[in-house]
Amino acid sequence: MPIDSALLERRLDELYAIGAEPEGGAYRPLYGTAWATAVDRVEGWLKDAGLTTRRDAVGNLWGRTEGTDKGKSIVTGSHIDTVRRGGRLDGALGIVAGLTAVELLLKEKGRPKRTLEVVAICEEEGSRFATNFWGSRAIVGGIERVPDEIAQAMHGLGYDAADIPRAARDDIDTFVELHIEQGAVLEAAKVPLAIVSAIVGTSHLELTTTGRPDHAGTTPMELRRDALAGAAAMIQAIESIARSLGNPAVATVGKIRVEPDQINVIPGRVVFTVDLRHDDLGARRALDARIRSLCGTIASERSLGLEIRVLQEQPPVPMHAEIRALLSRAAKHAGVNAIEIVSGAGHDAQILAERCRVGMLFVPSVGGRSHCPEESTSPEHVQLGANVLMKALQNLAY
Amino acid sequence: MPIDSALLERRLDELYAIGAEPEGGAYRPLYGTAWATAVDRVEGWLKDAGLTTRRDAVGNLWGRTEGTDKGKSIVTGSHIDTVRRGGRLDGALGIVAGLTAVELLLKEKGRPKRTLEVVAICEEEGSRFATNFWGSRAIVGGIERVPDEIAQAMHGLGYDAADIPRAARDDIDTFVELHIEQGAVLEAAKVPLAIVSAIVGTSHLELTTTGRPDHAGTTPMELRRDALAGAAAMIQAIESIARSLGNPAVATVGKIRVEPDQINVIPGRVVFTVDLRHDDLGARRALDARIRSLCGTIASERSLGLEIRVLQEQPPVPMHAEIRALLSRAAKHAGVNAIEIVSGAGHDAQILAERCRVGMLFVPSVGGRSHCPEESTSPEHVQLGANVLMKALQNLAY
Repeated sequence: MPIDSALLERRLDELYAIGAEPEGGAYRPLYGTAWATAVDRVEGWLKDAGLTTRRDAVGNLWGRTEGTDKGKSIVTGSHIDTVRRGGRLDGALGIVAGLTAVELLLKEKGRPKRTLEVVAICEEEGSRFATNFWGSRAIVGGIERVPDEIAQAMHGLGYDAADIPRAARDDIDTFVELHIEQGAVLEAAKVPLAIVSAIVGTSHLELTTTGRPDHAGTTPMELRRDALAGAAAMIQAIESIARSLGNPAVATVGKIRVEPDQINVIPGRVVFTVDLRHDDLGARRALDARIRSLCGTIASERSLGLEIRVLQEQPPVPMHAEIRALLSRAAKHAGVNAIEIVSGAGHDAQILAERCRVGMLFVPSVGGRSHCPEESTSPEHVQLGANVLMKALQNLAY
Repeated sequence: MPIDSALLERRLDELYAIGAEPEGGAYRPLYGTAWATAVDRVEGWLKDAGLTTRRDAVGNLWGRTEGTDKGKSIVTGSHIDTVRRGGRLDGALGIVAGLTAVELLLKEKGRPKRTLEVVAICEEEGSRFATNFWGSRAIVGGIERVPDEIAQAMHGLGYDAADIPRAARDDIDTFVELHIEQGAVLEAAKVPLAIVSAIVGTSHLELTTTGRPDHAGTTPMELRRDALAGAAAMIQAIESIARSLGNPAVATVGKIRVEPDQINVIPGRVVFTVDLRHDDLGARRALDARIRSLCGTIASERSLGLEIRVLQEQPPVPMHAEIRALLSRAAKHAGVNAIEIVSGAGHDAQILAERCRVGMLFVPSVGGRSHCPEESTSPEHVQLGANVLMKALQNLAY
C-alpha cells in the first residue's frame, strides 16, 4: 500500500506554517521559538507513529522502534531548521516522508528485525550562527568548539553545551535521506527521482576589507580608501573567476555587512562571505586560490587591508555504493529508472558518512528553485520519493 | 578677553563622552538616550550662561537673552546629533563655542541690543532615520511629512509630531555657525580659518536591485540573477563616473543591505544608498544622470529589477554676502586672513538660508578626517574659531 499523499502534504503544510514570515517563506533558526515549536510538532507525530522519542544533548529529536535482532540502527530523517524565508520542503520533506514511511511500515509489517529510527536533525543550514551541520556533527562526535553565542542559546532552552559529546553515536548502520534536488537537473531530464552519487565539496570563506571611514562630502575620490568600493571589485572578480572555470564551479557572495553603514560616511570596513563549491576537490582548491590571489591584488591596489578566514571546508563525499544500489532497486520496484546525480548542495549525509553507510534520494524541484518561498515539488513526486524511501527502509530493516 | 581654551576643551570632552562607543567615537542618534542626555547637559550650560532655555516642538534646544531693542534674533549654534562612531567636534564645536562665546559676551558686555540665542539643533546627520536636517527643516517650517518611525520615537520622549509646525520661526535675522572643515583644504593651505562661500548641493539616492534568491550550490553561474553581483557592478560604475568627472564631484555608496543575507543563498534583493555632491548644480545633475543611465544598463544586462528613489536633494546654497564680509572683518580683528572655501559637507545653514541671513566659519580638521573617532582640531584653532565667532556675534548684537 502506498503512502497517503494527502497525509504527507498536510504534515508539510503544518510544518511550513511554523515560523512563517510576513513576506512569505518560513524561518526556523536553531534554538529559536519557531524551531522549538516545530520540534514539538514532529515529536507528536513520532509518538503517534508508535515510536519512542528522545532529544539528544544537542537537540536532535529521535523516534525509535527496537528491532527483534541485535545490531546497529537503520536511520532516516533530515534537518528541521531553515534558511531565512526558506521554502516548504528543504529538510521538512525528509522528516515528514521518513516518519510517515516508518509509521506505515510499523502498521503494515509490524516490528522490524533491525532497530529503525527517524531523526529530526537540529541544524544544517548555518542560518543563525556561523556554523552548520551542527546536529550531524554532534552525532559523529565532531564538534570541537562551541561558540559562546550557541552555548548561550542552548542554555536558554535548558541544554548544557558541556553535554554535547553525549550526542555522539556509534550504533548507526545506515542513514537514508529523501530531499528535494534544489536544482533543475531532474526537471530538465524529465526524470522524477535521482540517487545521489556524491555531495560536492563546499568551502565558506569570510573576507574583511579595511579602509578608512571618511566624510563623504569632503574627501576627494583620489584620497579615499573605500572598503566597499574595494569589496565590490572583489565580488565582481569572484563571479568572473567562477564563470571562467565553468560548471560545476559556483561561487556566491551571500552576506555583506558594512561599517559604519551611514549614507554620508565612506565605508571603513566591509565583511562578506564567499560560498565555493565543486565536486572535484582539486578544482575547488584552484577556485579558492584564484579568488585569494585576485582579491589580494585588488586590496593592495586600493591600499585596503584584507583578511580571509575559512569558516568551513567540506571535501566532496561519495555516497555508499551498497546503499546507492539498494535505492536504485527500490526505485525500480516503484517502476522508476532513477538517474544518478552529484548534489551541489551540502547535506547531513556527508557528515554522517564518517560513521555509517549513507544514501540519498532526490525528487525534482519545480524550476530548480530552493531556499526561497517558491520552492516546490509536485505531490506526485513527493509521494513517489516517500514510497521509494519506504521500500528502501523495508529492505534494510525487515 | 579671549575665550578660555581649557573651558572649551572640557565642554567638548564632556559632550564627547556622552554616547561613547566601545570601539571609539560617539553615537548620539536623534531621540535616543545619549542624545537626550547630551541635550540635558547643554541645557545646564545654557542656564549657567544666564540664558532662558526652552525646547521647541521638534526637540531643538534654545537658550535666549532678550535684547534691549525690538527686532529679530541673532542666532548661533550647531547640531547635537552624530553619525555612528562620530568624532568629538562635528556639531559639538558649534554648540560649545557658541554658548561659551555668548556666556562671555553677557559677562563682559552685559545685555545686548539685539536678542541673542544659542541653539542645539536636534538633528542634521541623518544617521538614525531616512531623513536629515530634521531640526533646521522644522525651524523653517519645511517638514511636510513625518515618517511613522520618527513620530513613534518623538512620542516616546513626550513630543507630538502634530505640533511640529509650531517649531517654525520667522523672527531670526542671522544664523552664524562655527564648524570643523571636515576636509584638508585649510591644512594644505596652512591657514587656520575659512569663511564658507557656499555649501555644495547633495543628492541622496536609494537604489534597489531585484534578482532571484536561489540555492548557492545548485544554481549554475549562467542561470543566476544575483542582485548583489549586479549591485557590485553598479558600485564600481558609480566610483568610476565620479572619478572621471574630476574634483569636486564625489559619489559614495555608504549603506548596503542584502536579502536574504544568508551564506548559502544567492542574494535576491539589495538596497544601497548613493551620496552625490558637486558645488555646481548642473554638474551634479549630470553626475546623477550618468549614474542612472549606467546602473540601468547593468540591471538590464543582468535581468535585474532596478528602482531608484530620491531620498533627498539639496541645491548648492551661497552664504549671505553681508555675513561673509562681517566674518572676514572679525577674522582680521583676530589677526587672521581667512580664506573662502566651498563646503563639501551639508550644514544646517543651507536650510536656514531660506529664512534668514547665514554665515559659517571653518577651522582646520587634522588630516582632513571627520565622521570618525580620529576627527580632531588643535585647541589653538578651536579657540581661534570661538573668538572670531564671538567677535562676529558682538558686532551683530551689540
